[in-house]
Amino acid sequence: MLKMKDFNMKAFFSPASIAIIGASEDFTSIGGKPIRNLINHQYKGKLFLVNPKYKQIQQYKCYPTILDIPTEVELALIAISSKRIKDVMEQCAEKKIQYAVLFGAGFAELGSTGEKLQQEVLQIAQKADIRLIGPNCVGCLNVLEQIPMGFATSFEAQTFLSGNVALASQSGAFGYSVFGLAQEEKIGFSYIANTGNQVDISTLDFLVEMLNDEKTDVLAAYLESIPDGEQFIDILKRAKEKRKPVIILKSGRSQLGQKAALSHTASIAGSSDVYEAVAEQYGAISVRDMNDMIDAMKIFSRKKYASGSKIAVVTTSGASGIAMADLSEEYELEMAELSSKTKEMIEGIIPSFGSSLNPIDITLQALNNKSILSDTIEALVEAEECDLVVVATTLGGKLGEKVCQDIIELDKKTEKPIIVTLTGRKDIVGGGLNILQNAGIPVYQTPSQTIQAISMLVKHSKYIRRSKDQTVTASQILLDDPQNVWTEEKVKPMLKNLHFNIPRGVVVQSEQQLQSVLNSFTFPVVMKVISQNILHKTDAKAVKVGIETKQEAINSFYELIENAQRYSPEAKIEGILLEEMLTEDGIEMFIGIKHDPTFGPIVACGFGGVFIEVLKDISLRKAPFGKETALEMIKSLKGYPILTGTRGRDPADINAFAEALSHVANFAYRQGALLKELDINPVVVLKEGKGIVALDGIISWGESLP
Amino acid sequence: MLKMKDFNMKAFFSPASIAIIGASEDFTSIGGKPIRNLINHQYKGKLFLVNPKYKQIQQYKCYPTILDIPTEVELALIAISSKRIKDVMEQCAEKKIQYAVLFGAGFAELGSTGEKLQQEVLQIAQKADIRLIGPNCVGCLNVLEQIPMGFATSFEAQTFLSGNVALASQSGAFGYSVFGLAQEEKIGFSYIANTGNQVDISTLDFLVEMLNDEKTDVLAAYLESIPDGEQFIDILKRAKEKRKPVIILKSGRSQLGQKAALSHTASIAGSSDVYEAVAEQYGAISVRDMNDMIDAMKIFSRKKYASGSKIAVVTTSGASGIAMADLSEEYELEMAELSSKTKEMIEGIIPSFGSSLNPIDITLQALNNKSILSDTIEALVEAEECDLVVVATTLGGKLGEKVCQDIIELDKKTEKPIIVTLTGRKDIVGGGLNILQNAGIPVYQTPSQTIQAISMLVKHSKYIRRSKDQTVTASQILLDDPQNVWTEEKVKPMLKNLHFNIPRGVVVQSEQQLQSVLNSFTFPVVMKVISQNILHKTDAKAVKVGIETKQEAINSFYELIENAQRYSPEAKIEGILLEEMLTEDGIEMFIGIKHDPTFGPIVACGFGGVFIEVLKDISLRKAPFGKETALEMIKSLKGYPILTGTRGRDPADINAFAEALSHVANFAYRQGALLKELDINPVVVLKEGKGIVALDGIISWGESLP
Repeated sequence: MLKMKDFNMKAFFSPASIAIIGASEDFTSIGGKPIRNLINHQYKGKLFLVNPKYKQIQQYKCYPTILDIPTEVELALIAISSKRIKDVMEQCAEKKIQYAVLFGAGFAELGSTGEKLQQEVLQIAQKADIRLIGPNCVGCLNVLEQIPMGFATSFEAQTFLSGNVALASQSGAFGYSVFGLAQEEKIGFSYIANTGNQVDISTLDFLVEMLNDEKTDVLAAYLESIPDGEQFIDILKRAKEKRKPVIILKSGRSQLGQKAALSHTASIAGSSDVYEAVAEQYGAISVRDMNDMIDAMKIFSRKKYASGSKIAVVTTSGASGIAMADLSEEYELEMAELSSKTKEMIEGIIPSFGSSLNPIDITLQALNNKSILSDTIEALVEAEECDLVVVATTLGGKLGEKVCQDIIELDKKTEKPIIVTLTGRKDIVGGGLNILQNAGIPVYQTPSQTIQAISMLVKHSKYIRRSKDQTVTASQILLDDPQNVWTEEKVKPMLKNLHFNIPRGVVVQSEQQLQSVLNSFTFPVVMKVISQNILHKTDAKAVKVGIETKQEAINSFYELIENAQRYSPEAKIEGILLEEMLTEDGIEMFIGIKHDPTFGPIVACGFGGVFIEVLKDISLRKAPFGKETALEMIKSLKGYPILTGTRGRDPADINAFAEALSHVANFAYRQGALLKELDINPVVVLKEGKGIVALDGIISWGESLP
Repeated sequence: MLKMKDFNMKAFFSPASIAIIGASEDFTSIGGKPIRNLINHQYKGKLFLVNPKYKQIQQYKCYPTILDIPTEVELALIAISSKRIKDVMEQCAEKKIQYAVLFGAGFAELGSTGEKLQQEVLQIAQKADIRLIGPNCVGCLNVLEQIPMGFATSFEAQTFLSGNVALASQSGAFGYSVFGLAQEEKIGFSYIANTGNQVDISTLDFLVEMLNDEKTDVLAAYLESIPDGEQFIDILKRAKEKRKPVIILKSGRSQLGQKAALSHTASIAGSSDVYEAVAEQYGAISVRDMNDMIDAMKIFSRKKYASGSKIAVVTTSGASGIAMADLSEEYELEMAELSSKTKEMIEGIIPSFGSSLNPIDITLQALNNKSILSDTIEALVEAEECDLVVVATTLGGKLGEKVCQDIIELDKKTEKPIIVTLTGRKDIVGGGLNILQNAGIPVYQTPSQTIQAISMLVKHSKYIRRSKDQTVTASQILLDDPQNVWTEEKVKPMLKNLHFNIPRGVVVQSEQQLQSVLNSFTFPVVMKVISQNILHKTDAKAVKVGIETKQEAINSFYELIENAQRYSPEAKIEGILLEEMLTEDGIEMFIGIKHDPTFGPIVACGFGGVFIEVLKDISLRKAPFGKETALEMIKSLKGYPILTGTRGRDPADINAFAEALSHVANFAYRQGALLKELDINPVVVLKEGKGIVALDGIISWGESLP
């Protein structure tokens, strides 16, 4: 593919000149709406209309082709059918247009014919160095400068509310629905991009640009696909550095990853699960619906982080206090335990029949003493034992407005997030609502919206506070045997370099060899057939455990060979692996790695037995990562309490498992796509301080070894 | 307690005359607002004002006391402080007032002094046969007749929208917030009741009455407590008969049931878990927040049930179709697979670049061909393979209104539920929204609200379709030994009558007895100490398993007695239980029963091992119940796949376990409160067709036996 000029979103958002190709005098059509929208919003650049059907549309001369425009044109909005698109693109190339937006449908979404046409269009563009948005999109909106370039219904609004949120959406319907609804709640935007079939510029490309934009503090995206996994992760990493939260709705969750086979641990990671794991690992704020996205935009655009997860709630109604407490627990937030100092302070403010316990119920006494609520909020803002303050009120009218005004003043003076739940009909609480929304205070209608938004903020704040995970240096490992599959006799020595213990063992080829080494072994021992052709040893009865005597070992030697030959007559048997048997108690876990086409090596871990078989309890992360991430990964397993010691069991060596997990992850990362799959199963986690032991392992390599 | 006259809600909702005691000329005060509200809504009955401070308030004469009113008064609204309440109540008694609402705070919510006052007020009322609402409430609203009797902010609306939803709420703030917000979405109500501290009439009492009300089709309630578990269940049972859905928000979930001990299976059932289980079992529609409640009211007030869980989605935007598919899976709904007949029909309607696969994307072509959307909906209404039709659109303006009008016509002609997602700013889609809301079509703003509401409807429809669970007849069991605790030698024979297998066993008191019975036993055997004083046999080393020979059995006899005496020197040893050991493979489960103070006997079941210890995987139901419920209970366990056979394991005898579970539940129900706790653990579930075996059991009885 040709190297194209760098994408710069300013050209799409602030073009000095725009040509609308396929301009129509019918202002309700796709070729007419963009004209009307630009006129209505007084576009200050040069506007050219192109359509051989007309001489003039309103005050504008209409050119037969773009080549007839006498001056340079920066951006072309192309509103013509897919049939004529190639001719028009050739004309754009000749005119040296640099940027174009293709509105039309009828491309890749129709299958192979459309896909071919789309590629042809792209080739014309690449040859002429034209960067493209679309096809199958409704256009972009520069909110800061009020320039609508397309035909979204939202563009018909009189004015757009500016702010610090940028939104990039593959779907126009989704993006502009969110924009429209968010604007009703007074959320201000900087830019909205819609990429459609994204034959050239993708939603991710826009996110890169939006990250660099100084007026944008919060990014939001609707993604149907992740065309470039590395770019996706890179965006999230840089977003953390710049402290710009990225809110993402990834659709198509249900389609993917459902059929991932359970038969092999490394293959469990369905792509939807992989996406979720990567998004979590790199701090994306995942939302499931447009309402969630708007709720997230609201709380993040205030640009305050939470220093912990302890909330204090002040309400005028007992019921909403109880609701907040119930929901906090469900969303893993804590109700702050107030210090006696704070409690005393609050008792001096609220009526005797109120409650100074968190949630603080100041009762409808707030109707009579108009400063109670504000004074209580102030006390909580100053209380070190709480990290966020939630105000839940139903106060309407003038009093409600006064309280909201007080909240704004208090909010200005503190770095602590203040979040408001204002419940009631618009005709009653609307005045206060307006005041809060205009000041950018996050305000929600119900306790559950409030607590859900807070939980997103608290989780992301924790992520932001986290110091960078130190990835360990991958050990240099000599890969000297370029075969496609490595079985345990090759994998185990390698694992030793990656901080695993492995049982003492040796491969023997004859009874004589066996006899001579047995003297130095402690019984019981384990014996296994080694063969490239027998990967499922148990099925082949090619494993024997608990061998207690020398004679039993010799008998087993022949028995195992016989079993293996019966199972697979043409199998090449390389020898018998003799190992000392692990007799210490431990917990059986597994580690699997699979190379994901989008994100590269994805590491899985979990418990053996019912946890994996019945509960599909697996934790996933993208390699590489350090011990901190490995620990988080282990903690996120449902079966985690098994490791910490339940019902009198000793705690297990979580530390050693985490260390080995991060080492093996980094090893896999260094091999890149060459390492197709790695499976260490079981890994026995011994008691705390005793380490871990890998009892079996297999690696599938790609085309060639490094 | 005195038997009071039956509660009839009509007296509270349609009183012929009202006296407001503590009437105030300040119409913003608690004593003034009710006057203004009744005047504004043109109350047609007689209104009397009582307050010695005034001679006249507006056009009304003001009486010094209620005794001065010359005629009969049906309902008293009492807006005075708790200090004077007893005097006023005595006057009400003398005046033979029959019904009163106590607005005032300052009662039980303040602790013991207030609680005492509240009880004194109740006593006065009971003696005089006055039925009470409150104290600590904001009053009731008869929406059908537009009579507001109290001071809720919502009462200030010009008019109230009538409909078929009744709401009873312990919290006034919650109840009237829901009412206000629901009215904004055009949900019509019949009655709203607010019970506050509910010293006499409870929210449940109102639900009973609302169930009987002909104009009410849907009930909703906010409960902070369940004063009467039997009444609660009775309401839900009758609601099923009458096909009136009951939507419930139960608050205080987080406070309760968290500290339930894990040490004993029967004690695991915290009261919050018990409530959830009972609500589920008897078909309450549980919601977590006011928005959920409103969403539920909307879909249930349309009075259509779903005949299955298959939905067909038709959209004008691909993105919302994907969202619906994603969410359907999360909410356990199915996307209907369309028949070729339906697909052909739809292909004849929609443009070639649309999709006739479900979700059906008719594209924005709907803008050009104005009947596409309606024709597609009609095809789906007629398609037998789908149970519900979802229409997701962003169409605004005149076209949007036309489509909504078409939907109403289609909805009238079918029993199949049609649900609409209408996304967009009010100024764009508001016209269509109004049309749908006025016609009572359930319409939501986002895919997730829509799918969540549908999942409530589908789940409840399934519950309604379910035939009555036949509870088995409890076997007559002779309880001949009135001791507080029954250990296994007494419990096991009883379990035999309840369809459990038990190992063959006998209690021996001497070596001679042991020797003589051993001849008829098959090895291996198990031996256990029987003593009322040793309930945890394993701790006392009072159990021995896997005994293989006669001599080993004799040695064990003495060893066990020695161990028991060492563990508890004063223990009375009744003998040694000799049992044949179960050698068949099976899955260890448990059954526990605990008498809950609110709901009576609650049955728990689950798996042994990590499922109970780590995952707290327990299923609860209230006894009695039949096999169907028992099966549901088992299926709701996370570990359920263990029973159906995973990874080559044979399926277990789920049937036998369900049967025994229902038998033991019904046995417990017949014992009533006498049975404090019952614990059968382990119950080994053998292979399909082989039955179940109870290996241990204990019962704690209450004061005396039946």
